[in-house]
Amino acid sequence: MRNITTLLPITYPVIQAGMVWVSGAKLAAASAEAGILGVIGAGSMKPELLEHHIRKAHSLTAHPERLAVNVPLLYERPREQLEISLALGIRVFITSAGSPKTYTPWLKEQGATVIHVVSTPEFAQKSEAAGCDAVVAEGFEAGGHNGREEITTLALVPQVVDAVKIPVIAAGGIADGRGIAAVMCLGAQGAQLGTRFVATLESSAHGNFKTAVLSAGPGSTMLSLKKHVPVRLLKNKFYEEVRALEERGANRDELEALLGHGRARRGMLEGELDEGELEIGQVAALVRDLPSVRELVERLVMEQRQSLPAGYFF
Amino acid sequence: MRNITTLLPITYPVIQAGMVWVSGAKLAAASAEAGILGVIGAGSMKPELLEHHIRKAHSLTAHPERLAVNVPLLYERPREQLEISLALGIRVFITSAGSPKTYTPWLKEQGATVIHVVSTPEFAQKSEAAGCDAVVAEGFEAGGHNGREEITTLALVPQVVDAVKIPVIAAGGIADGRGIAAVMCLGAQGAQLGTRFVATLESSAHGNFKTAVLSAGPGSTMLSLKKHVPVRLLKNKFYEEVRALEERGANRDELEALLGHGRARRGMLEGELDEGELEIGQVAALVRDLPSVRELVERLVMEQRQSLPAGYFF
Repeated sequence: MRNITTLLPITYPVIQAGMVWVSGAKLAAASAEAGILGVIGAGSMKPELLEHHIRKAHSLTAHPERLAVNVPLLYERPREQLEISLALGIRVFITSAGSPKTYTPWLKEQGATVIHVVSTPEFAQKSEAAGCDAVVAEGFEAGGHNGREEITTLALVPQVVDAVKIPVIAAGGIADGRGIAAVMCLGAQGAQLGTRFVATLESSAHGNFKTAVLSAGPGSTMLSLKKHVPVRLLKNKFYEEVRALEERGANRDELEALLGHGRARRGMLEGELDEGELEIGQVAALVRDLPSVRELVERLVMEQRQSLPAGYFF
Repeated sequence: MRNITTLLPITYPVIQAGMVWVSGAKLAAASAEAGILGVIGAGSMKPELLEHHIRKAHSLTAHPERLAVNVPLLYERPREQLEISLALGIRVFITSAGSPKTYTPWLKEQGATVIHVVSTPEFAQKSEAAGCDAVVAEGFEAGGHNGREEITTLALVPQVVDAVKIPVIAAGGIADGRGIAAVMCLGAQGAQLGTRFVATLESSAHGNFKTAVLSAGPGSTMLSLKKHVPVRLLKNKFYEEVRALEERGANRDELEALLGHGRARRGMLEGELDEGELEIGQVAALVRDLPSVRELVERLVMEQRQSLPAGYFF
């Protein structure tokens, strides 16, 4: 099997990443319409809001089979999120930030396809043993929550490919067709892109946040909160506060007080560029425009083809 | 131009990285014989020792034109190292850890090819402006000295390719033909491999160090000394000492006292696995055997071809 278009009902082996505050119904439905997997990020949603987004996404696409839900298992009520999604017909799940053993067997019984996000080959093996259909191997350069081992996508993907038999989807550090072609050379069967989809017309990121992504440069992000929950942030006033706290050896409680969901919402959804938490990947430096999802996917396919002889991968 | 085999007198677009204590005459000559660029790492050599290695390398290969010298500009006497190399017929230089403006114009006047190592697109542009013939874009996952921005190879290479017109050689995170194919999809015209060449029969790394590389796993390295001179180390007793010093906010003098060239020599050349400094990249986790350089290069070419349709790159 050359790519994940046989595992998933999609045309191109690309996944629009589920992201907090950014990937709701509009982004996921536009992705499904464009032929890739459209993922609603449930991490920032209460069950009722998730239900609203799934129903709305269904109303916006003729391809509901290409809709998926990303459920970070570290937040509250993941079971409820999964149940609502199943009840509304979602059959593809991307789980992250938790053990693949907790929900995978049950989800498989419900006829779902389960993909778990990992940052080491060991977790990929645990995911395979738990019955997952595929893994997303996400490297250090990715935005948002991140592994403690700091393994980059280029180093990680071949290790994961060698460690498991299930398909591997690469994530972290991919913003264009060159990156997609690159990770497929490493043995990945698909690519998940997050940062690139933040800067699209259909993402629900605040306009200020989108503008900040467009103006980000090579050194604009940094992996922070390494002793707490590692997360890659765009450098802003909030980031400097986090760093100052860490430098003086603040404890978990002090960091918790500064953080909390409130800051991410303020930054990414409400556009408070100073006081808000802005989660984004290193490839923000490669993002220079604000296309529609359809335009973007067409461009990714074209760029990927130009990186390789026509017809090789797609 | 598709790859650096037109810029450099080599058969395959691969560079064996110059590394302290590891890449002397034997490794560089074996690399030249195998059709790639063989680089003597001058960083750990006094001028007399460098002279000895260049003369010896010449005696070991029928392809002296494929020999190069890597001169880290932060160490002592780089000018002397360059002069000796030129006097002995070396015409390819890889400079690093300093300004490309200092020696490039003079080296170009001597008819040399100059390649500068960079960790950001800005430094790539400075290198191009200084007259360099190419740059090595080296990412966060690389062993040894490393950039402060922590940009990974997958994120860095496309940015550098977009920023300059001169050829870009990717480094960091590449240990097999899959990695070479991947970085060439990103627009690199060649790949520099360090860690992989440490574990070859001809490298002058101590047997203990080679064994340590073979047993390294996914989380076995960490970027250390970020406030001093960032360097990726294999985790051992020395690394734990460095980390403990950093955690308690040690100043530069205390860190200097722990470090010094002595530790790197003890670790990498003399094989003191506890007390020595062991510089290695994340892809140590992908290195599982100890081939000759010839076997390794043949394998790299074959693996790279298997990642892509025959004849596409090489």
